[in-house]
Amino acid sequence: MYALGFDVGGMSIKAGLIDNSGNVILKKSIITATSPDDAVKDVVETARLMIEEKGLKLQDISGIGIGFPGIVDSNLGKIIFLPNLPWGNFPFKEKLSKLIPANIKISNDANLATLAEVKFGSAKGYKSAVMFTLGTGVGGGVVIDGKLFEGGLPSGAELGHVTLISGGEKCGCGRCGCVEAYASASALIRQTKQKMLTDKESLMWKEVDFDIDKVDGTTAFECMKKGDESATEVYDKYASYLGDSILNMLNVFRPEIFLLGGGISNHGKELLDRVISHCQKFNYGIKGALKTEIKIASLKNDAGIIGAASLFM
Amino acid sequence: MYALGFDVGGMSIKAGLIDNSGNVILKKSIITATSPDDAVKDVVETARLMIEEKGLKLQDISGIGIGFPGIVDSNLGKIIFLPNLPWGNFPFKEKLSKLIPANIKISNDANLATLAEVKFGSAKGYKSAVMFTLGTGVGGGVVIDGKLFEGGLPSGAELGHVTLISGGEKCGCGRCGCVEAYASASALIRQTKQKMLTDKESLMWKEVDFDIDKVDGTTAFECMKKGDESATEVYDKYASYLGDSILNMLNVFRPEIFLLGGGISNHGKELLDRVISHCQKFNYGIKGALKTEIKIASLKNDAGIIGAASLFM
Repeated sequence: MYALGFDVGGMSIKAGLIDNSGNVILKKSIITATSPDDAVKDVVETARLMIEEKGLKLQDISGIGIGFPGIVDSNLGKIIFLPNLPWGNFPFKEKLSKLIPANIKISNDANLATLAEVKFGSAKGYKSAVMFTLGTGVGGGVVIDGKLFEGGLPSGAELGHVTLISGGEKCGCGRCGCVEAYASASALIRQTKQKMLTDKESLMWKEVDFDIDKVDGTTAFECMKKGDESATEVYDKYASYLGDSILNMLNVFRPEIFLLGGGISNHGKELLDRVISHCQKFNYGIKGALKTEIKIASLKNDAGIIGAASLFM
Repeated sequence: MYALGFDVGGMSIKAGLIDNSGNVILKKSIITATSPDDAVKDVVETARLMIEEKGLKLQDISGIGIGFPGIVDSNLGKIIFLPNLPWGNFPFKEKLSKLIPANIKISNDANLATLAEVKFGSAKGYKSAVMFTLGTGVGGGVVIDGKLFEGGLPSGAELGHVTLISGGEKCGCGRCGCVEAYASASALIRQTKQKMLTDKESLMWKEVDFDIDKVDGTTAFECMKKGDESATEVYDKYASYLGDSILNMLNVFRPEIFLLGGGISNHGKELLDRVISHCQKFNYGIKGALKTEIKIASLKNDAGIIGAASLFM
């Protein structure tokens, strides 16, 4: 059997035909329609195209899973609020069901990425896992006893919206000082730019051709590796923000494994070593006796579509 | 049927004979022994005394539950680390089993208080609940799908050790800026004293007979009610710290109900109104659309023994 997974983003919707072992058999990407009704039609058309292209029939598909970047009610199959798309309060599952006779489930994208990692990625074989996706924002996902935990009511597991420094940097959610405001790629970019403005001699300026608008999530990282002092300072500070954010979630969930996904996680070992060292130093109860493994997520950009499809595996 | 619940504290061990409806039939309190082996013997003796006193037999008792103030491995029945008692790495259940032929379960005290509230208190009938116990420290408990959540590995649900202001006030756990360092009774006392030192005219001085060592968790509260400006400032700030700490846990767990227990929760409506107002203002996604009910826990000092006994109900 196969399942279809859709990963809705602000710009594009990624689609994947996934087999029962989590392999991506076929991938497509479509532009995200402005209206959710149009997006429903796009999903149906793409689903039919993918099934056809592989010589399959709808009966070969155990279900269609869809991940959204925001708050959804997965029980009702309804979108509640997406920060970057005007699709609030929309019964996606119901609308989709009317156009295609398939099993349909929806969830939050970061939740599904975590589920994918537990079923087929870095957390395979673990029963409890927590993940941060470090991108423009910080998404969070929680798996308890092998099952996705989405909150007692919809919109739980919003792990990026736990304060790291209450009253601190403004966060997109309306509060100040959330993890997202310190540990996201956007936050790292802000921190990098701030430091550059205080050190005109930093290698980071050369790295971006002396154009501060070219700073991205790799600027401080690359210059730190080249030995630049200011870049190292920025990066170490970022890693300690991230480490503290992870420690918070370890104290709450104490999972067997904690994963880092999203763009920033591509920094790999350099990031991981710093974060693990921070967590060992400040581990709750007994210093150094860190019980939770911390790893980089392995499914990268496919985590969303694999996770959405894996709702049927 | 009945069950016995023990609530171990740094100074005393409370014991209760509890019926299946959560009623406390008999209560006792014993001094906490320094050695855990002696405590085991004390528990056995107290259990036998209580059973006898009510004309019951050991067979009438479905089990003995014990709550500890710190990290325990409830699966193994082992104490791992208690901040205020030198009982680390001690197989309490195994030792107790050798002296009394009964079913035995152990857990963390704040976890058990939360379980008690879900089974017999303010959260009765709710499937998902999170609680803060606001005492010397801040304990946390989490119930998901009607079951106690203790972490993927032991020592999860340490909700007092999530940073509110990373790098801020020193916390007993070794980190700086935890919820416990801002929202515990001890923190409120510190905040009250700090404010008093800047305002020698405050009514709070009179409240404590001009002896700052007499400041307790009610000083700012009582003087706020009498209209003292500095006391109001302290209390409002404390309530916003607490509100932010609650919002964090709402974003993580989104439970149906959030409870406040422990000494500070006796402030009742004055505290609750401030906290709810803060949470409505900064609710994730949609301001004001607070979905989680926030209430004061009802079982007060008996929550620990009822919760411990309710491991068998």
